[in-house]
Amino acid sequence: MEVTNDYVYQLDREYVFHSWSVQSQIDPLVIAGAQGCKLWDYQGKEYLDFSSQLVNVNIGYAHPKVIEAVQKQAQELSMIAPATANLARGEAAKRIIAHAPDTFKKVFFTNAGADANENAIRMARIFTGKSKILSGYRSYHGNTGSAIVATGDPRRIPNEYAHGHVHFFQPYLYRSEFYAEDETQECERALAHLRRVIELEGPDAIAAVLLESIPGTAGILVPPQGYLKGVRQLCDEFNLVMILDEVMAGFGRTGSWFAFEQFGAVPDLVTFAKGVNSGYVPTGGVMLSESISEFFNDHFFPGGLTYSGHPLAMAAIIATLDAMDEEKIVENAASIGANVLSSGLAALGEKHAMIGDVRGSGVFWALELVSHPETKSPLALEKVAAIKMDLVKHGLLPFVAGNRIHIVPPCVISKEQAMQGLNILDDVLGKHTI
Amino acid sequence: MEVTNDYVYQLDREYVFHSWSVQSQIDPLVIAGAQGCKLWDYQGKEYLDFSSQLVNVNIGYAHPKVIEAVQKQAQELSMIAPATANLARGEAAKRIIAHAPDTFKKVFFTNAGADANENAIRMARIFTGKSKILSGYRSYHGNTGSAIVATGDPRRIPNEYAHGHVHFFQPYLYRSEFYAEDETQECERALAHLRRVIELEGPDAIAAVLLESIPGTAGILVPPQGYLKGVRQLCDEFNLVMILDEVMAGFGRTGSWFAFEQFGAVPDLVTFAKGVNSGYVPTGGVMLSESISEFFNDHFFPGGLTYSGHPLAMAAIIATLDAMDEEKIVENAASIGANVLSSGLAALGEKHAMIGDVRGSGVFWALELVSHPETKSPLALEKVAAIKMDLVKHGLLPFVAGNRIHIVPPCVISKEQAMQGLNILDDVLGKHTI
Ligand SMILES: Cc1ncc(COP(=O)(O)O)c(C=O)c1O
Ligand SMILES: Cc1ncc(COP(=O)(O)O)c(C=O)c1O
Repeated sequence: MEVTNDYVYQLDREYVFHSWSVQSQIDPLVIAGAQGCKLWDYQGKEYLDFSSQLVNVNIGYAHPKVIEAVQKQAQELSMIAPATANLARGEAAKRIIAHAPDTFKKVFFTNAGADANENAIRMARIFTGKSKILSGYRSYHGNTGSAIVATGDPRRIPNEYAHGHVHFFQPYLYRSEFYAEDETQECERALAHLRRVIELEGPDAIAAVLLESIPGTAGILVPPQGYLKGVRQLCDEFNLVMILDEVMAGFGRTGSWFAFEQFGAVPDLVTFAKGVNSGYVPTGGVMLSESISEFFNDHFFPGGLTYSGHPLAMAAIIATLDAMDEEKIVENAASIGANVLSSGLAALGEKHAMIGDVRGSGVFWALELVSHPETKSPLALEKVAAIKMDLVKHGLLPFVAGNRIHIVPPCVISKEQAMQGLNILDDVLGKHTI
Repeated sequence: MEVTNDYVYQLDREYVFHSWSVQSQIDPLVIAGAQGCKLWDYQGKEYLDFSSQLVNVNIGYAHPKVIEAVQKQAQELSMIAPATANLARGEAAKRIIAHAPDTFKKVFFTNAGADANENAIRMARIFTGKSKILSGYRSYHGNTGSAIVATGDPRRIPNEYAHGHVHFFQPYLYRSEFYAEDETQECERALAHLRRVIELEGPDAIAAVLLESIPGTAGILVPPQGYLKGVRQLCDEFNLVMILDEVMAGFGRTGSWFAFEQFGAVPDLVTFAKGVNSGYVPTGGVMLSESISEFFNDHFFPGGLTYSGHPLAMAAIIATLDAMDEEKIVENAASIGANVLSSGLAALGEKHAMIGDVRGSGVFWALELVSHPETKSPLALEKVAAIKMDLVKHGLLPFVAGNRIHIVPPCVISKEQAMQGLNILDDVLGKHTI
C-alpha cells in the first residue's frame, strides 16, 4: 500500500487524541520525513523549519551521527532499569556535567521537561525542609501535577490541584507590570517586587525560586542583564534554592550552551530536556550542584521513574552533544543570531507596522504582533492564525504562541536558509493588515 | 579502551543520581548487554531475568523485530511534534485499540506511566466536572505531582502536595483489613467499604476511582473475582469514572492482553506504559472510552507534552504488538503461568516455611516472605536483602519489594528457563532461615 497524506490524516483523526485542543477543531499537518532544516509530506511538499517542532530539534532532523548512535544502542541494549550502572547513562551524565559550570556534579535523568521540574521541586523541598515554590506568571514548566501549577500561563488554571505554589511578575519591559521606562528600571523594580513577594510569603516557608532563564513559550522574554544575578542574590540572602528551567533555552538555543551563562548567574539546580538530544529519544533531567548532590549522599530521595536514564535516550545525548561540539553547532546558532536574525528581524520590525517588538538571541527570537504600535494591543488571534496558515502555505513552519511568531529554527540552520525564511516572513506579513 | 565493570561502576557513581535511594548506600549492578531472558556484565557473568527490569520488558531483550523497527524509524523520522499527523503514531494507536474491548476509541500518548495517570485523572475531572480521586492504599501510580499522591504506598508521604486525593482499602485476603475469612467475604466487605468511602466523601465531589487492575509493586494482589465488577457497579451507580492502571499488569503480563479482562469489568479509561513496547523507547498513554472521547470532541483538553506520540516509541509499539501477536507471546505467558509457575511456586510454598503466600497469574507472581506462618509477620528486610543478594550471586535477577519476591520474568520465557529459575529460588531459599 502506498502511504498518502490522506491515509495518515484519517488514521490520526480516528485514533489519536491530541493535546491542548478541542478534538473536533484541529487540522493536523501531515509530515512524512525530514532532514536538516527541511520537512516534507507524502506529496513532496517541502517546509523550511522555523519551529524546531516544539523548539527542541536543535541539531536538525536526521543527523547521521545521532541516528547511528541510536541504531547501535538499540542493537546493544535499549532498556535497563535505573538501579543498574549503565555505560551510556554514565557517559551521558559525564558529558552534560562537562558542559556546565564547575559547581554541577551529578545528573538525575527523567523522561521530559515536566518531570525534570517535578524532581527539581522535590529536591529543593527536601534539601531546604521548606515547601513553597515561587515561579513566574510568564512561564511554562510542563503538564504534570506540580509542573503545571508551577506554570504561570493560563494553562495552569484548569489543572490547579497542587498546593505550595506562588507566582510573581517577571521583567518584560515591552509590557511592564512595574510602570518602568527602561531596562534598568524594569530590572530594579522586578527584583524589588520579588523581594516583597519573598518577604510576604515568608522566607522560612519558601523552598525555591523557579524560573525559565529566558521564558520561552511565554514570549522569549530575555531578562534585563542584572535580573538573574539579582534573583541569585535574593536566593542567597533568604536561603532559597534557585532552579533555572533550561528545557527550552538550554543546549545551544540561545547561542550558548546554557542561557543562564549570558547573565552571569549560576543556579543550584538546572532542569533540561528538548535540546539535550534534540528529541531523538524522549528524555530530560536535572543537574545538581555540589551542595545539593552531597546532601542526598545521606538523605533519602523519594522520587523515581521506570525510564530514568534510558540507554537509547542516553546514546542520543552522547551523540548529540559530541556532534554539537565537533560541528560547532552552538557557535553557528550564536552567529546566525548575531549576523542574520538580529538585523533581519529588526529590519522586518521597521518595515511592518504590526511588529510591535523584536527580541531574542541565538536562534531564539520572538516577533510580537500588535494591532496598534502605540497601545500595543495584541493582534487579534484570528489574524495571527491566518498569518500562520499563510506561512505554512508558503512552505515555512513557524512556532506561533498567542500574538507572537517565534523564530526558532534548528541551531544548524545556514545563513541562506535563515534568509530564505526571513524573506517568506517578509512576503507573508506584507499581505496581511493590522 | 576496553570497557570494564569497574569503569562503568565508577562512572555511574560519579555522575549519576539514583532514584528512590540514599546515594551513598547503593551498589548498582553493572549490565553490559542482554538477549531474550538473559543479561550479562562485562566479565561475562550471566543472569537469568526474573524481573523484566521494572516489570516492563515483556517481550524480552533485544527482540530482533523491535530493534529493526526502531532502527528503521530512526532513519525515517525520530521526532515530530504531537500536533502533526504521523504514520507511526496513527498505526500504534490503531493497534492498541484493536487489542482492547470495543468501547475504547482513541489513545492519548504520554512518556510513561506516571503521566498516563496524570492525564487520565485530568480527563476524569474535566469530563465529570468533579474533582476528588479515590485510589487504593496498596498502589503505585507514578512519581509526578498528582500520580504520586494518587499512589497509596508510603512513597506518597514525602511528596504530598496535590489535593483532592482520598485513599481506601482494597481486598487482600492474606492480610485482610476487613476481618474476612474467605475470598467471598473479603470481596463483599471491600466493596462495602468502598461504598462507605464514596458516600462519606460525597459522590457529587468524586470524579473517579483509580485502581491497578492487579496492584503490582504493592504485592501482585490479585483481587477476588467479583471485586472489579463491583467497583464498576459502584462507579455506574454514583456516576464516577472508572480508571484502571494497567501500566504494570497490561500487555500480556497476566496471560491476557489486559488484566481486567480476567475479571469481567470494563473501565472508562485505561492507563498503560511498560509492556506496550517493553521499554525499548520510553512511552505510555491513556485509552479513552467512546463516551469520554466524544465529550472532548467539543471540550478543550488542557494537557500536553513535547514527546506525546514520539515516532520512535510508536515504531516500537507497532513492532512489539505485532510480534506478540505473531509469536503468541501472551499465550506463552498464560501457559508458563498455568503450567510451570503456578505449580512450581506452590511447591516452593509447601517446602519453605518462610513463604507465607503465593499468588499471581501469567508471569506475574509474588512470594510473600514471613518470619512466622501463623502471625504472618513480614520477614525482616535485612533477611530479604540477603536473599536478594544471594539470588543475584546465583545468577537470578529477582524483583524484590518489601518482604516479597516478585516472580516476573519476560513473557517470552521458556519452560526450561522458568524451571531453572525456580531451582535457583529453591536452592537459595533453602540456605536462608526465618
Ligand atoms: C521551559 C519549559 N519547561 C518545561 C517544559 C515541559 O517539557 P515537556 O513537554 O517535555 O514535559 C517545556 C515544554 O515546552 C518548556 O518549554
Ligand atoms: C501500576 C503502575 N503505574 C504507574 C507506574 C509509573 O510508571 P513510570 O515509572 O513509567 O512513570 C508504575 C511504575 O512502576 C506502575 O507499576
